[in-house]
Parts: sequence; C-alpha cells; structure tokens
Amino acid sequence: MTLTRRNLLRGSLKAVGAAAGVTAGAGLLSSVAGERSLIGSSFAAAPSAAVQTAGVYRFTVGTLEVTALLDGYFDADPSLVPEFDRQVVDQLYQAQFRDLPGEKVRIGVNCFVINTGDKLVLVDSGTADKYGPTMGRLPENLRAAGIAPESIDAILITHMHIDHISGISSIDGKALFPNAELIVHKADWDYWHDDGAMAKVSKTMQDISLHSRAMALPYKKRLTLIEKDGEILPGIEAMALPGHTPGHTGFLLRSAGQEVLIWGDVIHFTALQFARPDWRVVFDTDMDQAEQTRRRMLDRVAADRVAVLGSHLDFPGLGHVAREGDNFRYIPSTWQYQV
Amino acid sequence: MTLTRRNLLRGSLKAVGAAAGVTAGAGLLSSVAGERSLIGSSFAAAPSAAVQTAGVYRFTVGTLEVTALLDGYFDADPSLVPEFDRQVVDQLYQAQFRDLPGEKVRIGVNCFVINTGDKLVLVDSGTADKYGPTMGRLPENLRAAGIAPESIDAILITHMHIDHISGISSIDGKALFPNAELIVHKADWDYWHDDGAMAKVSKTMQDISLHSRAMALPYKKRLTLIEKDGEILPGIEAMALPGHTPGHTGFLLRSAGQEVLIWGDVIHFTALQFARPDWRVVFDTDMDQAEQTRRRMLDRVAADRVAVLGSHLDFPGLGHVAREGDNFRYIPSTWQYQV
Repeated sequence: MTLTRRNLLRGSLKAVGAAAGVTAGAGLLSSVAGERSLIGSSFAAAPSAAVQTAGVYRFTVGTLEVTALLDGYFDADPSLVPEFDRQVVDQLYQAQFRDLPGEKVRIGVNCFVINTGDKLVLVDSGTADKYGPTMGRLPENLRAAGIAPESIDAILITHMHIDHISGISSIDGKALFPNAELIVHKADWDYWHDDGAMAKVSKTMQDISLHSRAMALPYKKRLTLIEKDGEILPGIEAMALPGHTPGHTGFLLRSAGQEVLIWGDVIHFTALQFARPDWRVVFDTDMDQAEQTRRRMLDRVAADRVAVLGSHLDFPGLGHVAREGDNFRYIPSTWQYQV
Repeated sequence: MTLTRRNLLRGSLKAVGAAAGVTAGAGLLSSVAGERSLIGSSFAAAPSAAVQTAGVYRFTVGTLEVTALLDGYFDADPSLVPEFDRQVVDQLYQAQFRDLPGEKVRIGVNCFVINTGDKLVLVDSGTADKYGPTMGRLPENLRAAGIAPESIDAILITHMHIDHISGISSIDGKALFPNAELIVHKADWDYWHDDGAMAKVSKTMQDISLHSRAMALPYKKRLTLIEKDGEILPGIEAMALPGHTPGHTGFLLRSAGQEVLIWGDVIHFTALQFARPDWRVVFDTDMDQAEQTRRRMLDRVAADRVAVLGSHLDFPGLGHVAREGDNFRYIPSTWQYQV
C-alpha cells in the first residue's frame, strides 16, 4: 500500500489487506514451507516462482547472535518529507545505481532477534496487518529462522509507532509473544499514554497513541520502562535518541570487543538521508530534535566506526557510516561467511 | 580449508572434509530442514544457533528470475596473487569497513539458477566435496530454494575450474543433474581436453584438466559447445572473456530492457581488485590477457551502467561498478523488495 499521512491510520485501525491495491507483493516473502512445496510443482515446470526468498539474515556481534527479519516494505509518499526534492532524489538514486523511484519511495521495515546465549530478545515487531499485504511478514520470517514466538524472552521497542509495535499483540488483545517481557523507554510510554499531550496533537497522532496503547496493554503486567541509558540486558545497552519520538531509543550491542548500534529510525530513507541528513519526516514528534539526533549519531558512528543496524536501512539493515564532505555515506556490510 | 597452490589438488582429487582443519564452518549454511528442527529444541533454550541462514537470494532481470546460491567460502593464500601487498590490502579493507583479513583472504563461491519461465538454467556448480567443509553447500541451498536437481534443464559453465564444475557429477561418474544439457565454451573444452597443451603445464593444471574431464564426462552425450558470442538460450547471450582460462565465458542476461552480466571470475577478490585491477591470480591461464579482459569489462560495465553478477563477488554477488580515478569501485545492489 502507499503510505500517506491521510491513509496511515485508515490502515492502522483495521486490516487493509485486500483494499490496499497491491497484489504483486502478496507473495513477497514465501515461508519456508511455501518454498519447499514448490519442489516438483510449479518449479518443475519452471514458471517464475514469483516469491522472494525468506527475509532472514544472521550475523554475530562477539558472542551475540543477531537475526535480521524483514517485515516487508511500503511505498512512502514524498509528502512525508517536507524537504523532498525530486531532482536531488533522482541524482542520489542514480549515483547509487538504484532504480529510480516512481511517485513513491519504497522503504523496508526490519526487525531483529538477538540471541544472547541465554535469552532471545526481539527488537521491534513490524506492522502485522496494519499496512497491507506487502508488510506483516515477521511471523513467517521468524518461522523461517526457526524461532518460535513462545521462545522470545523480551521485546525491546525502539519507539511506539505502528510499524514497530503492531506485531506484538493481536487486534483482540492477545500477546503474540506469550512469554516475553516488554521493554520500552519511559519517555515514550508516558508520551503516548498522556491524554493531555494527545489532546494537542493531530488526529493521526491521536490514533497512533490509541493504537500503541492497545498493542502494549496485554504486556502491562510484565512491563519494564527504561529510565536512563545503560545496560538493560547482558550485552545490550539502552541509548536515548529522542526527536523522532520523545522516547525513541537505540540499543547498543557490545560483546567480545565488537559493537553494533541498533539505532531504530535515525534514518528512514537509506538512499537519501545519509547524503541529506537535513531531510526530515513529518512523523517526527520534534523534527528539529530528530535532525539534531540524526546528525549527532551519524557523526559519532562515523568517527568511532561503529556498525549500525537500522529499522529502515536496506534489508538486512547492517552497515557503517563514512563522512563525505559535510555529510555522510552508507556502506552496507557484506555477507558474513562464517558465524 | 586454506587454498594454496600446493594443496589445491590434494583437495581436488579426494574429499578433504575432516582433514581440512576447519570445523567452525561446518554448520555454515544450514539447510531449511536443519533450521526448522531448531524450533522448540536448541532455540527454545536460546543457545547460539551457530548456523548461518540459507545462502539463497532471488531477484529479477526483466521477466527472468535469478536465484543466487552460495556454495560456501574458502581462505585464499596471498601467494595466489603475485602483486599482493599486505599494507594495501589492510588499507582497502579498512576503507570498506571490513574486518581485516588474517593471513589468508576469505572469498565466497556463488552459483546461480536462471528461471526463464520455460527453462531452469544452472550457472556453475561449486566445489562439491573438493574444498573441504566450508564449501559444497550448493545442493542444500538448491533445496532451500525449492529447486530440485531433476528440474534443471541446462548447466552453463563459465569455465572448467574445480570450483565451478565440481558440483555437476559425483566422483563415481554420475550426473547430478540428470535432465540437464551441459553448455560450455569450445575453447575451454578443447584446452582442458588437449593432451598436447596439458603436457606443457604444471602438475596442478594437469590435475585440473583430469578433474574437469571426469566431471564433464557424464554429460558427453548432451553437450553443447559455444563457438561464438550470441544468444544461447532465450534471454541469455554468451560473451567470451578469455584470459582466466582460454574459454572463460560471461553470460549476459537481457529481458524487458534490463541487463545483468554474469561475468564469472573477472574479479576474484571483491575488496581488492576493483581498486587494483592490476592484481592477478596465478590460476589465470594467461595473466596478462586476464588483466586486459578485467580492465575492458570494468570499463564497459562502468560506462554502460550494466549490473554484474560474479562467482566470487560478496554473496549474493550482484552489484554495479563505478569509475574511481583510474580504477573502479564496487557498489553492491540492495535487497530487491519485490519480485
């Protein structure tokens, strides 16, 4: 489906699957079971499989094992970025040897599972059925990765937006990760639960608030709120990255001398915002603060050569950042041949 | 295992699995079945899975569907590259945010299946059991991709080296793709079958010759030799790229206005040879000609912005080439969100 400000919540409050006008993506991510069933059937006669392979990629950070899981993709309307300039966009896409975007700009949504050796920790949960049929593939990619929802011990949420929190509960209020504790920053929790603050924001933001409250509710008895930066689980440190939302949080993975920063939504558009960190998104609660946080983090990870893992960086979302003049360049990590 | 000139053929003539001294990679590429069995067993208690996800990635070129399949990786000895300069290597790795290589330089081996909608075409076949336990994963990755060996209609071989042709037949002379025609360049076939030429080359090359003859033998009654450039299957054109071997061949995929050049071994070391196309490998039958071919192809694909797909480019092996001063830079393609 196409994501615009106007139809975002049309999608958020009910499943829009069939209505979304996207059919080609319906088979985007085949489940493993789906792929196996092709043997001797459609594949034997060699018609196109018309399915992407499972959106699953595994790598290590010291002794931590991280599995990137694709929830899918959506097509963002340029109106989401006030600074959007078609000529600049086309130049950047061309310089990066990407197919030029159509009227909309396609971005992916990544989730991650961290295996600490002792705990399985899910980071963000995708959109479930809130964004149409090109999204909501986390459950089947978890299955493809051999990870049962029951085995997840904790869920870290970078922030309570629809494309990060919708996968944790069913619409009728059932926790989809029945054995998991929910961990989210107190500033985000408080903001989206603040009726006073919500009375002053747009209808869109009010709906986001209602939705994220509903998704979080089934976890209310096993909820941990992050109040300050620092270690929250072995090898995982919280890092406040406010602006996109008040409690937008990064998670720094550190193990055996290696580091990866899960930075959530510091960057929404891989092809654009490294070269143009001044390009902001209208979903930022505080666009100026979000831009400051983005520039600060780009500076820091470029200077320290820390790998980043992003919710909307090209799947699997892992790479490094290099300075390029006043701005930056993204260098995606290569396939990790050995775990 | 470590690949050196000396032990290459030790590996080529018998399986070296257990003797190769590499154990960590044994579970590198889990089969789908292997992953599924983790549900509720090791994963539930959350020890590290210690397996990489399947080395399978699918994308389209017009109406052609291409599946990249990883055969594995090996560690190449610097003696394979006469121009090897450790300081330059470390600089290039650092600039690309790669972990510095140890004494050896790790490279992957990719195979591809092209689905024309009518035929399933395998391009190269990996090492089977000839390079130790970090290699020979094509069969399980084919399985993970839902492709039965029996459904392969044709096998294109870029050249008859061990890491390209070993997967087509068993050591006891059985065709592993029982319904496939074998397609290879006449210049390669003739060279490796030329007793006179082989009398003049090293023992290593003689052994390569014997091995490739044995692998090709089961297909002798369904063999097509490429004699000139041009279309060999719908949407697939052969392109002579001599030097690495006399009949080293590229395959240009063209469909619905899109192009991808499968260029075989034009580049062996992704991190090194775009910046240093003058760095050659001792397995080149004619190192000077191989370098000329490499420079010519780099020039051409950079000028024409044609995507390349390489046997040893970082998995899945798909990217573009940009000019950078007198030399070149590799830009890996991003995840294709929709097939």
